Amino acid sequence: MSKDIKIGLFGFGTVGRGLFELLRDVPTANVSIERICVRDASRDRGVTANFTDSAEDIFNDPNINFIVELIDDAEASFEIVSRAIKLRMPVVTGNKKMLAHKLPELIKLQKEYESTLLYDASACGSIPVIRNLEEYYDNDLLISVKGILNGSSNFILSKIFNDGMSHTAALDLARKEGFLESNPTLDLDGWDSLFKLVIIGVHAFGVYVDPSKVFNYGITHMNDDDIRFAREKDRRIKLVAHVEKLADNRLVMCVIPQLISRNKYIYSVEDEFNGVVIKGLFYDKQFMFGRGAGARPTSSAVLSDITACLYNYKYEYKKMRHSASLPKFTDDITFRVYIRYTDPVDLGLLHFEEIYESYSSKGYNYMVGRVSLKSLHASREALNSRKVFLAAYPTD
Amino acid sequence: MSKDIKIGLFGFGTVGRGLFELLRDVPTANVSIERICVRDASRDRGVTANFTDSAEDIFNDPNINFIVELIDDAEASFEIVSRAIKLRMPVVTGNKKMLAHKLPELIKLQKEYESTLLYDASACGSIPVIRNLEEYYDNDLLISVKGILNGSSNFILSKIFNDGMSHTAALDLARKEGFLESNPTLDLDGWDSLFKLVIIGVHAFGVYVDPSKVFNYGITHMNDDDIRFAREKDRRIKLVAHVEKLADNRLVMCVIPQLISRNKYIYSVEDEFNGVVIKGLFYDKQFMFGRGAGARPTSSAVLSDITACLYNYKYEYKKMRHSASLPKFTDDITFRVYIRYTDPVDLGLLHFEEIYESYSSKGYNYMVGRVSLKSLHASREALNSRKVFLAAYPTD
Repeated sequence: MSKDIKIGLFGFGTVGRGLFELLRDVPTANVSIERICVRDASRDRGVTANFTDSAEDIFNDPNINFIVELIDDAEASFEIVSRAIKLRMPVVTGNKKMLAHKLPELIKLQKEYESTLLYDASACGSIPVIRNLEEYYDNDLLISVKGILNGSSNFILSKIFNDGMSHTAALDLARKEGFLESNPTLDLDGWDSLFKLVIIGVHAFGVYVDPSKVFNYGITHMNDDDIRFAREKDRRIKLVAHVEKLADNRLVMCVIPQLISRNKYIYSVEDEFNGVVIKGLFYDKQFMFGRGAGARPTSSAVLSDITACLYNYKYEYKKMRHSASLPKFTDDITFRVYIRYTDPVDLGLLHFEEIYESYSSKGYNYMVGRVSLKSLHASREALNSRKVFLAAYPTD
Repeated sequence: MSKDIKIGLFGFGTVGRGLFELLRDVPTANVSIERICVRDASRDRGVTANFTDSAEDIFNDPNINFIVELIDDAEASFEIVSRAIKLRMPVVTGNKKMLAHKLPELIKLQKEYESTLLYDASACGSIPVIRNLEEYYDNDLLISVKGILNGSSNFILSKIFNDGMSHTAALDLARKEGFLESNPTLDLDGWDSLFKLVIIGVHAFGVYVDPSKVFNYGITHMNDDDIRFAREKDRRIKLVAHVEKLADNRLVMCVIPQLISRNKYIYSVEDEFNGVVIKGLFYDKQFMFGRGAGARPTSSAVLSDITACLYNYKYEYKKMRHSASLPKFTDDITFRVYIRYTDPVDLGLLHFEEIYESYSSKGYNYMVGRVSLKSLHASREALNSRKVFLAAYPTD
């Protein structure tokens, strides 16, 4: 679009307000917020802006030519985004849950209506990972994308491992700093990372995998024994999202805590930062690193999505075009895990292909062994309800 | 371009051969090398390819629709690149020296002939820094770009600081590993970093600064005393390129060794890696990290430039458009430096605004003080001929 961007903004939470303040404090040529749709327009938000509680006021305002959607509710988000696409209004969204579930439909809609939807801000806070996968790592060299995609859980893990904070104190601090989503389970149980990983999978390998098919496990059940175990091995526990194309063109994806050794890039990703390691043939590894949570970094990422539209930038979804040669999703692989359990009965939930270590004491029992991703996935609910903690534990 | 890319390649040195091997080992859809122009076509290079020693054979071949220029000679490089632009053939170049001197002319030519020139591979090895500055950091939030842009000198510094190698042994190893340019002064005296910095300045801030106006100083004169000094302060010496927009809209650029403390991202950039810290309002700091030297990483970056043309990607040079508000280049600033000299007479070359530390012994003399960038620049030749070593030495 060559004319000015006049935004109809949905949502005035952390990121919505961040964007409002950014545009107020650092005026950006050709970009302004015309109207903001919130649930309760009468509430005093301490700012002078044109609020409404009706989506119609946004979509029917002839001044508005651009939609930015920054609300929590995934269903309402889809309504807004798909409506904007059908109206051929460029739209930027930060709703990863919605995207992770609705991407195939949204890609189709964009094509049908020749419209633009951007969402770099959704996947990795301020790191432009989607655009780099889309534009730069667009060849067959790409092997894997692996990273810390959730700033909130990483903040908590950092406080525990670096500052010796208790789990509870770290959680409280994260809440106080505004790093936790309104529903903390999203961050702590790996859902947020999972949704981002699904989006990344589309742009990295051209493959959409329904979130329900991808194993995710979080740090909710991690306790002091696990922390001590990691420390004794000179490792840190990080919540890692991972998508990798195997040599036989199968694609593996998962989100799982991992015992990370010092020689890994992501070992040093601290606090609310995100870090992504992109691995490929020839260029080996590249690492991108930046703030992954918080109002200001995320809103600056939203602004980059917005200004990209000034220059007609679109995701091309290039990799999806070669459907015959696309890698096939699988969870039929095994890997080495550390599993801490309370009751020996819990072990029945798992199918160890091999056991390397086994430890039992009053109150602390763990096993290190090789399990299949498929079997973990099948038992996820049960493992969760029995508060089993597990972490990938590679030998290197 | 929607059709296949049929490349006429100039140069078969480290990167040219790297690209050839990459396309041979990992065939890329729609991309092939048709002919390769080298100085001596009769020499046996151990590969089966269509060599020629005449540029005319490339430009007159109706099969060739794309030029990749990977030769050392800056003048010949400009000839080839400008000729391709005038023929409206997309062209990719890796020649940073040529680009740093000829960018304004090449930007004009591209506009006049509506042609495409890409050179992400020239600026930071495998890290896509130009494209990210161009596309993502395209707003007024950007404050500075600072980084290690030369893999060869960094390799040498790493071997000295981490492995305790002597300066000479590290240099020999770098040569053996193929990390040094044919003229090592380019790497060690900061010229290579300077050329890259000039290119980055154009895409980061829309400002072209002639390389002769930018102060650069290298690590050629660094000796064991300097290394010990850095170690005693728990710092490492890194060769840092830096461009920054000051609050009053002035632009500072320089390449200089720097005493880096542990809490900085670039402290940990080791071996032949490059690392770039991008700083801005709201998003704070982002860090990109990857291999910066060697045949394979650089040729993979060249491939990304090539495939981008399949999708009609072009640099827009957006930031240059707002000429009224562009920052103005200056070297009228002062900063804190460590200067090691042999003869007290050498100090006459510098104008210290303030002296913080002064040390003298038989054979080792240094001063820590505040000097102006302008005065350093004026004395560069003399400082170099007297083998003075200097390094920025910020307090943090």
